[in-house]
Amino acid sequence: MKQVAFQGEFGAFSHEAALAAGGPDVSCVPCQDFDALFGIVESGGVESGVVPVENTLVGSVAENLDRLHASSLHAVAETLVRVEHCLISATAERRLVDINSVASHPVALAQCRGFFATHPHIRRVVSADTAGSVRELAEGRLGADAAIASRLAAERYGCAVLRPGIEDHSTNYTRFLLVTRVHVPKMGPAKTSVAFTLSGGAGSLHEALGAFAARDLDLSWIESRPILGRPWEYRFYVDVREAPAAALADALDELEASGAGVKVLGRYHEAPQPPAMAEG
Amino acid sequence: MKQVAFQGEFGAFSHEAALAAGGPDVSCVPCQDFDALFGIVESGGVESGVVPVENTLVGSVAENLDRLHASSLHAVAETLVRVEHCLISATAERRLVDINSVASHPVALAQCRGFFATHPHIRRVVSADTAGSVRELAEGRLGADAAIASRLAAERYGCAVLRPGIEDHSTNYTRFLLVTRVHVPKMGPAKTSVAFTLSGGAGSLHEALGAFAARDLDLSWIESRPILGRPWEYRFYVDVREAPAAALADALDELEASGAGVKVLGRYHEAPQPPAMAEG
Repeated sequence: MKQVAFQGEFGAFSHEAALAAGGPDVSCVPCQDFDALFGIVESGGVESGVVPVENTLVGSVAENLDRLHASSLHAVAETLVRVEHCLISATAERRLVDINSVASHPVALAQCRGFFATHPHIRRVVSADTAGSVRELAEGRLGADAAIASRLAAERYGCAVLRPGIEDHSTNYTRFLLVTRVHVPKMGPAKTSVAFTLSGGAGSLHEALGAFAARDLDLSWIESRPILGRPWEYRFYVDVREAPAAALADALDELEASGAGVKVLGRYHEAPQPPAMAEG
Repeated sequence: MKQVAFQGEFGAFSHEAALAAGGPDVSCVPCQDFDALFGIVESGGVESGVVPVENTLVGSVAENLDRLHASSLHAVAETLVRVEHCLISATAERRLVDINSVASHPVALAQCRGFFATHPHIRRVVSADTAGSVRELAEGRLGADAAIASRLAAERYGCAVLRPGIEDHSTNYTRFLLVTRVHVPKMGPAKTSVAFTLSGGAGSLHEALGAFAARDLDLSWIESRPILGRPWEYRFYVDVREAPAAALADALDELEASGAGVKVLGRYHEAPQPPAMAEG
């Protein structure tokens, strides 16, 4: 049985990513934090894990890029999860007018500002976790009349979705990478995540990107990270869109020859863009 | 008197940034969220505001870059704030051994994992806000024995720092931009934040960066953001290190002539790198 570790509680958006990445027979393993997740996959305790690297509203999850760079793991797939916040009550009989308080993680509460503005009688209660709030709701010890979390959390804990999609922006997606200890190198075209390090100097990034441009390799993402303790040195994370393995290898050879420290974080097939993201 | 708006409660790390950006006579104005902050500065209600755009651990604060891009405001200064988490009790007489529960924002709790690992008897309590926890502690209604927040919050609410620097990573800095409605264009050398939009196509980013490289203009930061509703089109945010105004203007003219949509977000003097960041 395929095992996929994820960060958070059952019913978390990361749990959705683990289900999507692992397929119907997957066994999902919750981890308390990302260090624990990387640790258990690196030690072979669980064969793979899903880690968020980018959210359409919030931006990059730079800590996880840094963890992946520092680890021996490989990214072998990507998954996009739509972050749909649902108002969840213990039973379907509950009416919205009877809800006086709603608990969730502060980020989820902040992403549902419009809902609270139109329901000013509802008090916001801060909790540690979206899915954990639903579990506590089901156990009768939440300290609020309802919770905000995924539809999956409602199903998992036998609660009811009172109102789906209460988030302010329907274009809220998180991109996850599936990471594993062993991997079979993809020989055909594949999207490739690459990290490289440059020391300062005008134009050094321009020169580095020339290695890709000269081979018609298109970048779908770029992110710079300051390297702590080495002022004005940067690590760049780039995603190269699906490209032949040979052209990519040539580009990376040229990059490395120019003195840039290069590490391939993974090769995988690009996830299709969901219609809502394409339509805006 | 100079007025600077910030997001959060008095004593928040953003409040520290407002004090640092505004100088000794500043009047700091708290805002509930960033939309409110941009709104009050755009309307002229408050003359300026500080917004976080990058954190050394977490990465970019992409939402605020997008807000700045969409607004009519200009970045006129940058400030680095060291995020030092302190364990704060109501009185200095309290001993660590008597602390059985600590409240703070989930992100602050997560950044003090080592402290909780070495003090396993201390229970973590989630709250909406770091500084707000200290205010509630002072008011005797926190629901925990202590809070985690800035030293400024302890001073502000007359509480005591029981243990400073309990965060896992001392290299935790947040970079803030000071934004204003009116600005006097800087004619001399200045760091410049620029947004530009490219439609896909291999090498288009390489070509765009060539406009900077050809003039020996060095980038200290680059960040790509997908443009929702326009698949494979990206907005790039770059910071150009202190550069003569004429060379920068030439580069931006070339970029614009190539069909990239260009917007200068601000010109300001680069904040000195703090020693801890430089030393690692």
